[in-house]
Amino acid sequence: MSDEQAAQLSINTIRTLSIDAVQQAKSGHPGTPMALAPVVYTIWNRVMNFDPEDPIWPNRDRFVLSNGHASMLLWSILHLTQVQAVNAEYERLGQPSVTLDDIRRFRQLDSKAPGHPEYHWVSGVETTTGPLGQGVATSVGMALAQKWLANNYNRPGFDIFDYKIYTVCGDGCMMEGIGSEAASLAAHLGLDNLCWVWDNNHITIEGNTSITFTEDVAARFLAYGWNVLRVGDANDVDRIEHALEVFRQTKGRPTFIVLDSHIGYGSPHKQDTSAAHGEPLGDDEVRLVKRAYGWPEDAKFLVPDGVYEHFAAGIGRRGRDARQKWTELFTAYREKYPGLATEIEQMQKRELPAGWDRNLPVFAADPKGIAGRDASGKVLNVLAQNIRWFLGGSADLAPSNKTTLTYEGAGNFQAATPGGKNLHFGIREHAMGAIVNGMSLSKLRSFGATFFIFSDYARPAIRLAALMELPVFFAFTHDAMGDGEDGPTHQPVEQLASLRAIPGLVTLRPADANEVVEAYRYIVQLRHQPAVLALS
Amino acid sequence: MSDEQAAQLSINTIRTLSIDAVQQAKSGHPGTPMALAPVVYTIWNRVMNFDPEDPIWPNRDRFVLSNGHASMLLWSILHLTQVQAVNAEYERLGQPSVTLDDIRRFRQLDSKAPGHPEYHWVSGVETTTGPLGQGVATSVGMALAQKWLANNYNRPGFDIFDYKIYTVCGDGCMMEGIGSEAASLAAHLGLDNLCWVWDNNHITIEGNTSITFTEDVAARFLAYGWNVLRVGDANDVDRIEHALEVFRQTKGRPTFIVLDSHIGYGSPHKQDTSAAHGEPLGDDEVRLVKRAYGWPEDAKFLVPDGVYEHFAAGIGRRGRDARQKWTELFTAYREKYPGLATEIEQMQKRELPAGWDRNLPVFAADPKGIAGRDASGKVLNVLAQNIRWFLGGSADLAPSNKTTLTYEGAGNFQAATPGGKNLHFGIREHAMGAIVNGMSLSKLRSFGATFFIFSDYARPAIRLAALMELPVFFAFTHDAMGDGEDGPTHQPVEQLASLRAIPGLVTLRPADANEVVEAYRYIVQLRHQPAVLALS
Ligand SMILES: Cc1ncc(C[n+]2csc(CCOP(=O)(O)OP(=O)(O)O)c2C)c(N)n1
Ligand SMILES: Cc1ncc(C[n+]2csc(CCOP(=O)(O)OP(=O)(O)O)c2C)c(N)n1
Repeated sequence: MSDEQAAQLSINTIRTLSIDAVQQAKSGHPGTPMALAPVVYTIWNRVMNFDPEDPIWPNRDRFVLSNGHASMLLWSILHLTQVQAVNAEYERLGQPSVTLDDIRRFRQLDSKAPGHPEYHWVSGVETTTGPLGQGVATSVGMALAQKWLANNYNRPGFDIFDYKIYTVCGDGCMMEGIGSEAASLAAHLGLDNLCWVWDNNHITIEGNTSITFTEDVAARFLAYGWNVLRVGDANDVDRIEHALEVFRQTKGRPTFIVLDSHIGYGSPHKQDTSAAHGEPLGDDEVRLVKRAYGWPEDAKFLVPDGVYEHFAAGIGRRGRDARQKWTELFTAYREKYPGLATEIEQMQKRELPAGWDRNLPVFAADPKGIAGRDASGKVLNVLAQNIRWFLGGSADLAPSNKTTLTYEGAGNFQAATPGGKNLHFGIREHAMGAIVNGMSLSKLRSFGATFFIFSDYARPAIRLAALMELPVFFAFTHDAMGDGEDGPTHQPVEQLASLRAIPGLVTLRPADANEVVEAYRYIVQLRHQPAVLALS
Repeated sequence: MSDEQAAQLSINTIRTLSIDAVQQAKSGHPGTPMALAPVVYTIWNRVMNFDPEDPIWPNRDRFVLSNGHASMLLWSILHLTQVQAVNAEYERLGQPSVTLDDIRRFRQLDSKAPGHPEYHWVSGVETTTGPLGQGVATSVGMALAQKWLANNYNRPGFDIFDYKIYTVCGDGCMMEGIGSEAASLAAHLGLDNLCWVWDNNHITIEGNTSITFTEDVAARFLAYGWNVLRVGDANDVDRIEHALEVFRQTKGRPTFIVLDSHIGYGSPHKQDTSAAHGEPLGDDEVRLVKRAYGWPEDAKFLVPDGVYEHFAAGIGRRGRDARQKWTELFTAYREKYPGLATEIEQMQKRELPAGWDRNLPVFAADPKGIAGRDASGKVLNVLAQNIRWFLGGSADLAPSNKTTLTYEGAGNFQAATPGGKNLHFGIREHAMGAIVNGMSLSKLRSFGATFFIFSDYARPAIRLAALMELPVFFAFTHDAMGDGEDGPTHQPVEQLASLRAIPGLVTLRPADANEVVEAYRYIVQLRHQPAVLALS
């Protein structure tokens, strides 16, 4: 079998596994996996530095499926590359993350092939997606984190962190405001380690995008400042590979690849229609599609001979080599920089460094009291000095939220200074939430801030933090209904109750300055729960 | 006094009223009113067809201040043009909407010059703003509504609805995702009755936009498909007037005017800095600014002789003439088309047409029952036939939400068919919320829809509907935690509780098909409250 033949066979395996799983489950999204199998194949088997043996290797390239409804792409590729499972204690379990049996039970309770990608539940999933726009925005946080890690931990001859982030997304992510916010910021920050591949298939649930989405997306990304490429045929793996190569060589800005594709590729009756989006093809059509692929028409969940081997020889070997080299490098690094190496290891396990709570302020009894945000500002400045990888910022309200890290050397995170710890999210609360999540998925202790009332803008991302069990936190200030002068648009009434209603979210409202300190002491020790602080 | 001198005097009156009010209140936002007084002056006094005598005249041009923190612009102009107050029964009260005394008590309880523009509270305010991005997106709903009204009610020789929408916004509205969503849809729909003026002052709260917002906004709007103009000097009223003229002559797409301005214009120490954004200038600086304007340094809340007259001769006369002509036209229209005229009058008072509830379905007892969304779909199709100005759509989930109006002649709202009643919001829940609000502010009975779980994306706009007391509604389907197969990202847990926590929002969760009918019967009769239906 030539490499080309093996590639085609592997791509069609992704397609048919996806089709069969949706058919079996009697629900799900077959069309986009059929269309995007080649690009996912190319990213994984030809490009990504990712070792299926160790899906939590810190320097792995990241893959984000932002159009999470196409989850069968992920389950197929995790299975075919034989990504290994890891438990919550970061131990490898010696069994595949997703088995063929899981895929057979796609969308069923307890299957490791659920309806949408679920972080924590399936090893190899880098972030939970499904709510559109979240994945792309989260990937910006991952890219930002890589820059920060590289800047803080790499040393001459020791590129400990040099990974890249590959994100696949659809029209939904392009229409959602959170995607626009994140794209604008990614370009501003010059995140050249970030590549978004946009599935330009012109189809969403209500039909052709001509009914509502006719902007020039490529021109929009040029306006943000992205490097914009186009691959006119989603089946052309060489062109895709070339575009990804251009991405890796492009410095100073993120790359956006417009990939023209056909949803339901190969389906004689459903290709290029919304009928291919979100329901099983039907038995007859499945047979016709398989015939079109040159596939045995009655075979189900078939992984032909040579496919596992082809992936093992591709991503398997490349990933193993890369990780081995890195492990040697890291051993030498540990010898030379034991303190830094220890920090990296602590960070990876979400542990805190020794002395993380030294110098926390104690406030004298004071009948007038100081505002919660002022106490918070003091605590943040202590914690950020004690914990190197503790960083964050506000959505253009830092002076009001008192979140600025003012001590010498804290610095601003900018394209030219990606080691800084003050983030300027801009007036983009929703993207801020997702970016904070992406940073946390990269093991940084990240936080965001805005007025309490505008927590509503970030709510969908906060909910995802809770689902993912990420130890992020948000400092929401001006929590008093009586704040008054700005009027009802600025008066939080239901925000406390509605945040408390989110399962898994720790919501604290400290009543004085010392309670602020204790609240921080508590939430900083959380390893698997997000928190909100409502502050005056 | 030449017209030019009177214009300059009037502009400086807006500026100094704003400065004095903020100084007196010891809080507020002086810098942007100082910068934008000329454009607000030009829109109002030279361009808008708006009669201060009747701020609810149905064919008035609309003005939206999307950077609502600059509310003193609005209070100044409403006062100087002597816009008259109207009560909740749509009766004119024979007193000014905003008095000089209100301005003196800017941001104080009960003042008609509150911190942010409040619809309902102050006549002449077209929509509540303050939460950034909402105003621009709401203005898209207003523009869409004008198109719909014109298409449904204008007749040859009877341009009953031919008004335009003028929106002023800042960097915040450009960064917020909701603004991007709305801009994309506005261009798709070819809303050439809509003009956004972007205050390009490079300043937000955290400092210069160079720290987080460096995209090419003009190029972005070209990518959406807007007509993009630029005025390089915010003080050049003739150039501004010319740009607005180009807007009015441009067919087929909305207009975006980039207005280069200087926040805190005229302040020797604070111009072009974020210090001018959100705090009083200070007594000394106020004096220096007034000197720079050639203003008496110690005068406070001064309206020089001739200023009221200048506005009366501008917008006052133009508006009165326009409204008089329209009133005559409408009288003739009523004679020729009594049915249509009655509808317009009912609509304006938020009344329902006779027979609005005929043919509402009654569902037979059925042990299995039908899904709430299916019952809802049937009801919507009846109501939309009974009430001409009842229309809406979904954020790309119409087939799932069952919100499609399928009866003959319902039609799709598109650029070429702006009389259609099926709206395709695209995957833009947040903008959908604001657009539905904008349509309701234009007196249409508008609705939106998505999955219950994604109500979170639209939440800030829903909250504003509640504050504004708008009778919009949202059909949120798939409300069961047990929906299951899509997984936790799609399972609503806290949505019901958190929507119920929004003051003023009616949240109903009908338990069977007939309860769906009754729920609709109830909410359609609401004149001043938004509603959410949680449906299976
Ligand atoms: C925030 C959000 N809104 C709505 C949905 C429901 N939804 C799932 S897929 C989809 C259409 C997505 O279209 P596109 O991104 O083009 O994906 P494709 O049809 O190409 O697979 C929608 C609206 C969602 N998952 N998330
Ligand atoms: C959704 C939302 N987030 C945050 C704020 C707080 N806020 C008020 S004004 C402002 C800065 C706005 O900058 P810009 O639009 O450029 O206005 P300018 O400084 O030019 O007046 C911010 C962040 C808000 N009002 N709404």
